[in-house]
Amino acid sequence: MDFSDFNIAIVGLGLIGGSLAMSVKKKLNPKNLWGIDVNTNVLDHAESTNIIDRGFLSAREPLQKSDIVFICIYPRETVEFVKEHMDNFKHGAIIIDAAGIKVPLLSAIAPVLRDDIDYISCHPMAGRESKGLEFAGDNIFEGADYIITPTEKNKPENIELIKEIAKTLGFGNVVCINPCLHDDMIAFVSHLPHIIAASIVLDPIMAEETLYTGGSFRDMTRVARINPDLWAQLLLDNSEYVLKHLKIFKENIWDFEEAVSKKDYSRLKFLLAKACERKESFDLGADTRNKSER
Amino acid sequence: MDFSDFNIAIVGLGLIGGSLAMSVKKKLNPKNLWGIDVNTNVLDHAESTNIIDRGFLSAREPLQKSDIVFICIYPRETVEFVKEHMDNFKHGAIIIDAAGIKVPLLSAIAPVLRDDIDYISCHPMAGRESKGLEFAGDNIFEGADYIITPTEKNKPENIELIKEIAKTLGFGNVVCINPCLHDDMIAFVSHLPHIIAASIVLDPIMAEETLYTGGSFRDMTRVARINPDLWAQLLLDNSEYVLKHLKIFKENIWDFEEAVSKKDYSRLKFLLAKACERKESFDLGADTRNKSER
Repeated sequence: MDFSDFNIAIVGLGLIGGSLAMSVKKKLNPKNLWGIDVNTNVLDHAESTNIIDRGFLSAREPLQKSDIVFICIYPRETVEFVKEHMDNFKHGAIIIDAAGIKVPLLSAIAPVLRDDIDYISCHPMAGRESKGLEFAGDNIFEGADYIITPTEKNKPENIELIKEIAKTLGFGNVVCINPCLHDDMIAFVSHLPHIIAASIVLDPIMAEETLYTGGSFRDMTRVARINPDLWAQLLLDNSEYVLKHLKIFKENIWDFEEAVSKKDYSRLKFLLAKACERKESFDLGADTRNKSER
Repeated sequence: MDFSDFNIAIVGLGLIGGSLAMSVKKKLNPKNLWGIDVNTNVLDHAESTNIIDRGFLSAREPLQKSDIVFICIYPRETVEFVKEHMDNFKHGAIIIDAAGIKVPLLSAIAPVLRDDIDYISCHPMAGRESKGLEFAGDNIFEGADYIITPTEKNKPENIELIKEIAKTLGFGNVVCINPCLHDDMIAFVSHLPHIIAASIVLDPIMAEETLYTGGSFRDMTRVARINPDLWAQLLLDNSEYVLKHLKIFKENIWDFEEAVSKKDYSRLKFLLAKACERKESFDLGADTRNKSER
């Protein structure tokens, strides 16, 4: 598709916003690509390196002229930003967020949403341990999943447009799912792993001089390098589903603990074999899904 | 060092034994490299592809002539093998295992150990999700940690020899630690992560069609593909330390759960920040250690 008549704005030039800017510039080549951020240095850098065409500290002017606005800031800030700027969006604009939590965000925004703009909530499932524009790159989305959580109000043609954009930007699976299912799934595939990684590294043995590690430990604790502000928000905003999966996880841990403490070899082998089977069939399903949808 | 007068035998040509054979052949170039395995096909394949010079189903003959024997089979099998073949080892031979658990193994072997052979218990901290010779490679040890757990009986010159061999084979950190500390550490860096990965994938949501995952989930569950027999053994043989770290882990998980359920933002942020700090300082320490020891 041709985007040479489109003005596109990106709100928040951090890791995701910055990477999106690089990718949009290179692969969509819009008429104008504008960046909105609270940090002058970030805007200056993005402008001087041609990541964006122009940077704005104040959102009003670029929003009034933008056909598509990508909002790439924290979920709670996203709600604030959308509320604050509801009157500034261009007639017919498509507003896309990148928030990792959907139900509370959509509920908060729904009452103030203008009828003539299309707010489409999306989640690019990509990240890095490090935050900020300096870690951004136009390749971080390559093959990653892009989740769209449409509401009844979204126009089908705009959903199709987003899908096409996401595929053009390099995402692998681009799929629509229900916002509730999104939050349930994210509690499991993202929020739970972060709590686990953090819980592991809080063991006092981490301070031992002689802790030599293999790949399983490195992989398991990678995401303990976390942004505490963002993640405290995410976990609380999704507390219902987080608690649901924590409960299931704890029951499984308890099963293992009991089998180990009772020296119950056959129970332990049964649990491990069941887990291995689940994982293998999951990986197989994921492979099939990737192939069929690409 | 020159190994052209050495006969070396490797017991068990699985992933670790096979990789070791490839690496020993290429980098140590011994007089003879013999493989001992219970599987004729494995021996035939290893012989015909020159991974070993000759394969043996019966261990007696190669053991009687080998200066160094690497035992690369499960911990409990290692104990059985050493006991069974105690009379067959060459006078002055160095026997090296690759077991992931030390205290129970050394305790079981000590009473039957001949005085003229040097049994040195080692742990190459490398692995793959898949087992068997077909996944072996001479590069899987590259930069990995090699742990030696010496006892009072080991000759210092033989420990030095093992260190040199491990470095020649490409291992990164080659270190000596106390067997108890080894088992404590391994419970934390390896056994706990495997229990956690298994406990995650036992969540029923794994069967959902629409489970899209990012890097944190993939990394976190990688080792759920587990060999149930081996791991049931490992967890039970190390049950004391496994239960110790499971207890600490559960307390941390409980802290997070409580903070989420009470919607306690500041407590949650405190826990996440503490975890992040621990992880960052651990990574920094690991980097420094790697640099100073290489």
